[in-house]
Amino acid sequence: MPITPVVWSPDTRRHEPRHEVWVGVPTPGTEVAARVDAILDAVGPGRELVEADPYAAEALHAVHDRGLVEFLRTAAARWADGPYEELVGQSRVVPYVFPTPALLSGMPPTPPTALHGLAGQFGYDTMTLVGPGTWEAALAAAGCALTAARLVADGAPTAYALSRPPGHHATPTGYGGSCYVNNAALAAQSLRDAGHARVAVVDVDAHHGNGTQAIFWERADVRYGSLHVDPAAGWFPHVFGHAGETGDGDGAGATRNLPLAEGTGDAAWLEAVHALAEWVADCDALVVSLGVDAAADDPESPLEVTAAGYHRAGRILGGLGLPSVLVQEGGYHLPSLGGLVTAYLEGHEAGRVVGV
Amino acid sequence: MPITPVVWSPDTRRHEPRHEVWVGVPTPGTEVAARVDAILDAVGPGRELVEADPYAAEALHAVHDRGLVEFLRTAAARWADGPYEELVGQSRVVPYVFPTPALLSGMPPTPPTALHGLAGQFGYDTMTLVGPGTWEAALAAAGCALTAARLVADGAPTAYALSRPPGHHATPTGYGGSCYVNNAALAAQSLRDAGHARVAVVDVDAHHGNGTQAIFWERADVRYGSLHVDPAAGWFPHVFGHAGETGDGDGAGATRNLPLAEGTGDAAWLEAVHALAEWVADCDALVVSLGVDAAADDPESPLEVTAAGYHRAGRILGGLGLPSVLVQEGGYHLPSLGGLVTAYLEGHEAGRVVGV
Repeated sequence: MPITPVVWSPDTRRHEPRHEVWVGVPTPGTEVAARVDAILDAVGPGRELVEADPYAAEALHAVHDRGLVEFLRTAAARWADGPYEELVGQSRVVPYVFPTPALLSGMPPTPPTALHGLAGQFGYDTMTLVGPGTWEAALAAAGCALTAARLVADGAPTAYALSRPPGHHATPTGYGGSCYVNNAALAAQSLRDAGHARVAVVDVDAHHGNGTQAIFWERADVRYGSLHVDPAAGWFPHVFGHAGETGDGDGAGATRNLPLAEGTGDAAWLEAVHALAEWVADCDALVVSLGVDAAADDPESPLEVTAAGYHRAGRILGGLGLPSVLVQEGGYHLPSLGGLVTAYLEGHEAGRVVGV
Repeated sequence: MPITPVVWSPDTRRHEPRHEVWVGVPTPGTEVAARVDAILDAVGPGRELVEADPYAAEALHAVHDRGLVEFLRTAAARWADGPYEELVGQSRVVPYVFPTPALLSGMPPTPPTALHGLAGQFGYDTMTLVGPGTWEAALAAAGCALTAARLVADGAPTAYALSRPPGHHATPTGYGGSCYVNNAALAAQSLRDAGHARVAVVDVDAHHGNGTQAIFWERADVRYGSLHVDPAAGWFPHVFGHAGETGDGDGAGATRNLPLAEGTGDAAWLEAVHALAEWVADCDALVVSLGVDAAADDPESPLEVTAAGYHRAGRILGGLGLPSVLVQEGGYHLPSLGGLVTAYLEGHEAGRVVGV
């Protein structure tokens, strides 16, 4: 059985989201630092732990606009300099006005100067707060993914990146959905840069990875396939993740979405994993956006996948025999989180050896 | 002295915003129903009170997209049917995710099905809550403006619409900035429909009326001029209201913005009113977006205009001798609110008779 190195960074614990503002109400956040340790405690034993290489902000420009990176790098300190804590007790960056088509109305906007106006240009929801440590954690999460990609480029059959905060909702120019920097997209681009001609990203997180889709929307060299709870049933990110989204331009046909009904369990979920595995079988390398929030116990999705289902998904994707970077995405039920990730990893390791 | 009829509706009291969510923090709202009575008590004595004609939703299509009107008409009831009060205690419609360019990333979105997803398509901020009575009040506010325009079309030299909630931030397709329906734009369009060839909207509210600007952005027949606190100093609506915005297409040159520094008092403020008055002097009818939140005591702006300044502004704009519809916009300091509106009305009435 191949041993999958686990790439982690203590800095991924530094993001403390405080809360998520949902429909105007501050609610307790579930994307907490304790996720790192819940996973580490479970996957660590018997596997090589690798601390992530240090990366600078510039490494993120591979998939993100410089404006977004600079905003994320500086926003917490700028916010602390502002009157926001004093005025309303807000210690985190939260946008309140957003340059939607309804506001813009086809007129050319001038970028806001004040941070409380500017925040809505980069953050597209009110759930994804930026505070002290957010940038350091997001950069470290990206570092985990990039380091795992380096290990695979250097010959490891598989590497796992304990990236936290997650990344697949981060677009070229925006953050949201508890994601700041797109770790999986960085890993995929890194594999491309290392010479893998066709890279596949298979996203098994319970939610559609609109950020990853956006980054590779018009590219043929990185395929993006996702299975997730149907956004038309009222789930984030609402406006993307439908079956009709298949890419555009050079990327036409290189995106594939398999939305699933609420309540979907192992059988139909694994059928969708199978379909995506077949679809990417001719690629040269694989990135798995490994969200385990499709699990039955998870508070953030209505899917009903079991640990055995995640193990089987690992068998299927590992069985492709492709060099694989596994990047942590969601998964919020602390008691079961580590076991679910371990189940997937063991499945992937077994699949690599014996095939599906 | 001509007597200005005051058009009002008891239904304008029905909107109870609960609070405004600013940078993620629910804060007490200032756009309260008591504004109606504060103004009515001050301007009523000695003037004819006219109750607004009833209008149906279709009347709003003159300046608004049908999708926005239908959303506003139905949202509160749909929200009450949803799980939002039960889940997080939220009795008002508040968006949490917004289809900004950063989210859309150039991909074609599918409209959200769930109301909590859909809300961000129409509402562009988190301050402007929709609840029971909001639609009825917004429709009544529009009715005040439309009735005042009818009175003027029928020959009254001036009519005042006690519209509440205010309107000038409402765009063709969106609501925000405590505005749902653009009362002043409806009045301007109504004057156009009544045969006035060139209609001017002069907006003396402390904030830029991005909604009115958007509605008439590409039209030459309705001129839009605004003086307001400089959005580049960090004020709503942040992305619009700069001097460089002058209209487009047929409307090129028909928009004019005079942003003012924080702390601007009567002298410079009146100079800007003068400039706009000269600019619209060749129009056939006038709509004044009469926000009195530029007053020194107002909690929502840093301008320092006095009641004497508002009186003088009335003299200047009334002195144009144009048929005039005066539409209430902002003004949030309840103790001084009525006196400020009265000061403007008396100035406008005097200006009509004796000129500037």
